[in-house]
Amino acid sequence: MTATESRPPLTGDGTTSSPLDHSQRLVVPVAEPMPLDCGTPLAPIVIAYRTYGKLNADRSNAILICHALTGDQFVADRHPVTGKPGWWGHMIGPGRPIDTDRYFVICPNALGGCMGTTGPNSIDPATGAPYALDFPVITIGDMVRAQKLLVDALGIDQLFCVIGGSMGGMQVLQWAADYPDSVFGAIPIATSWRHTAQNIAFHEVGRQAIMSDPDWHEGNYDRFGVRPTRGLAIARMAAHVTYLSETALHRKFGRSLQDRKMLSFGFGADFQVESYLRHQGITFVDRFDANSYLYMTRAMDYFDLALGHGGRLTPVFLGTPTRFCIVSFTSDWLFPTSESRQIVHALNAVAANVSFVEIESDKGHDAFLLDEPEFLRVLHGFLDGLAEHRGLGPADTGPDPDSRAAGQP
Amino acid sequence: MTATESRPPLTGDGTTSSPLDHSQRLVVPVAEPMPLDCGTPLAPIVIAYRTYGKLNADRSNAILICHALTGDQFVADRHPVTGKPGWWGHMIGPGRPIDTDRYFVICPNALGGCMGTTGPNSIDPATGAPYALDFPVITIGDMVRAQKLLVDALGIDQLFCVIGGSMGGMQVLQWAADYPDSVFGAIPIATSWRHTAQNIAFHEVGRQAIMSDPDWHEGNYDRFGVRPTRGLAIARMAAHVTYLSETALHRKFGRSLQDRKMLSFGFGADFQVESYLRHQGITFVDRFDANSYLYMTRAMDYFDLALGHGGRLTPVFLGTPTRFCIVSFTSDWLFPTSESRQIVHALNAVAANVSFVEIESDKGHDAFLLDEPEFLRVLHGFLDGLAEHRGLGPADTGPDPDSRAAGQP
Repeated sequence: MTATESRPPLTGDGTTSSPLDHSQRLVVPVAEPMPLDCGTPLAPIVIAYRTYGKLNADRSNAILICHALTGDQFVADRHPVTGKPGWWGHMIGPGRPIDTDRYFVICPNALGGCMGTTGPNSIDPATGAPYALDFPVITIGDMVRAQKLLVDALGIDQLFCVIGGSMGGMQVLQWAADYPDSVFGAIPIATSWRHTAQNIAFHEVGRQAIMSDPDWHEGNYDRFGVRPTRGLAIARMAAHVTYLSETALHRKFGRSLQDRKMLSFGFGADFQVESYLRHQGITFVDRFDANSYLYMTRAMDYFDLALGHGGRLTPVFLGTPTRFCIVSFTSDWLFPTSESRQIVHALNAVAANVSFVEIESDKGHDAFLLDEPEFLRVLHGFLDGLAEHRGLGPADTGPDPDSRAAGQP
Repeated sequence: MTATESRPPLTGDGTTSSPLDHSQRLVVPVAEPMPLDCGTPLAPIVIAYRTYGKLNADRSNAILICHALTGDQFVADRHPVTGKPGWWGHMIGPGRPIDTDRYFVICPNALGGCMGTTGPNSIDPATGAPYALDFPVITIGDMVRAQKLLVDALGIDQLFCVIGGSMGGMQVLQWAADYPDSVFGAIPIATSWRHTAQNIAFHEVGRQAIMSDPDWHEGNYDRFGVRPTRGLAIARMAAHVTYLSETALHRKFGRSLQDRKMLSFGFGADFQVESYLRHQGITFVDRFDANSYLYMTRAMDYFDLALGHGGRLTPVFLGTPTRFCIVSFTSDWLFPTSESRQIVHALNAVAANVSFVEIESDKGHDAFLLDEPEFLRVLHGFLDGLAEHRGLGPADTGPDPDSRAAGQP
């Protein structure tokens, strides 16, 4: 029997004893191990999540948000570690595209994560110490299996929509593949149906940077009272460049110098782009765990929806009842439009209900996290149409403080 | 007074006492310091180089090859450390596009390098120990200034052609800008007139990887009897991904597994692309110096031909007598065709003699190092036309063992 616990919402005054105290939690006990794709069962499992809005009477208005590689459950309220607004605060809230006056939004921290959900830095019941590399290598399928436990525990038979970008988009596709009857609508954004060789290569660079850091200690840094912050910062810097486009970098920084008028003829951060990148690396290590980074990137590398179907994607979606909206961005070279088109072609081949939109943007892969008006309009519009098909009523426009309590849009 | 020394050519049996013993060397003595762009004069300077073919009587058939970031002078014969054929062995030799029966080919190791030319691992006469970070930060302009000393010492007033790709292409452009009367023809390949923000960012990731390695010791690893091999390998891996195209990676590796039929659910090199990348990192550290990598990448970052001209490229080439052939590759996203076009536009604006060829290739930036038939034809053809304009005779087709002694095509 699983149990959900509701903890007090974040007050914003930073006085809570743990940064994760304000997350809700699903606890799957040791007696109910969850099978993993690697063959090892996992127990216990904790899934930390946040909800926004109210579940309606027939439980038909639930939207599941799947976060990306370094995202977390704080999709629409202040991050407990960084103090920054939710990573999709402009997307979720009353009157926003994902309207919390109308929908019940659930965002769990993914399995393998480091914000309260079970992952490599959780305590291994067999040893009483963090799993570290004894944590089993998980897949996108495992992440989704754990999310299904949460959705079941919340008493929801069918999600109104599953939405996510990048690694989140992989989870959306996996949901539609594994639980078609539980997914009324699906919005995979800036993603792929299998991780490409180039993207595996970029991930491998990041992992090697972490694993080469002497403070990593074969994953047991916790035992040594250190953290492989240098390696993790390098991994983040390398990845961050791939999230942007050359156009965006050129517009934002060009060859502008940082706090100086002339080149220093040294190895300091002469250029603004260097200073920006170093900052990205340094701040990332405050909120993310190195082992989690290894496991999450590995899950993405392993993702290949056509595995087990002879490399063909079409059989995966045969007979799917789900309505899809596939979104890509013109300047995203990490998950380019061509990848999304392949998903669209596979869905078309099985006569699925699919919309496809390529958003004009020069902001690279990062665009899915940004306030891009056309992108927001597309999501708003698709969800409106989906709600009509599902027979959901219009947004509750009356005052209802409760439904707004959790979100901080 | 500078002095050139000729050492015995490589016998190929690996019995020479030093891997660099078979390089020719120019020695610029302490009494003749060379000014650097940073303001510090540098002395002494050694320039290690290789030549192929024979200089003709009027010294009009010399081609200077400028190597890329991690290249060296062993452009057309066996590398003394790796034992591999020259990096442009298919390009240079009798009957090849850069025909050693016709041209006298000079390839120096760039200033700041680690294959015999003065760089950060050379001995600082002030201390008797390697310069390490006391070596002045050099520029592409400094590299070219040092090459000019070599060309002068060889008694060559005008180079028939200067050729190079990537960082080598930057040097070609700098030659044409600084010594227009000394450059009859110029072939800048897969390059740019100023390093972009994205490329600075990628370099910064590599530098941070090296400088984060505890074995780097602020550059003084030599003193500690260690080398920052882990950081340098990460830098190489990160850079190597950028040299390839997603298409090439997909064709070469796709998601194929390395020596196994199933995923290992671990962090070993499951995928061939991971194994390949690790190999690239590991082998690189055997032949390259970490501090050199810092200095060479910095020189590229600093490269901006329009600096000092209000950001405008046109004045740089005003009145240029040089004939240019600009070459780019369709799938090169590190130095894309758009960068080359900007050079062409600037040259056109001053009515320079310029050809521009974009080669169809899916091999990414690496294409300039590969045996791409159309690329070889373009170079061959341009050089033929250039030779006609210069009044050079046809290739010497008679037997002349001497002219073939140095090269190993």
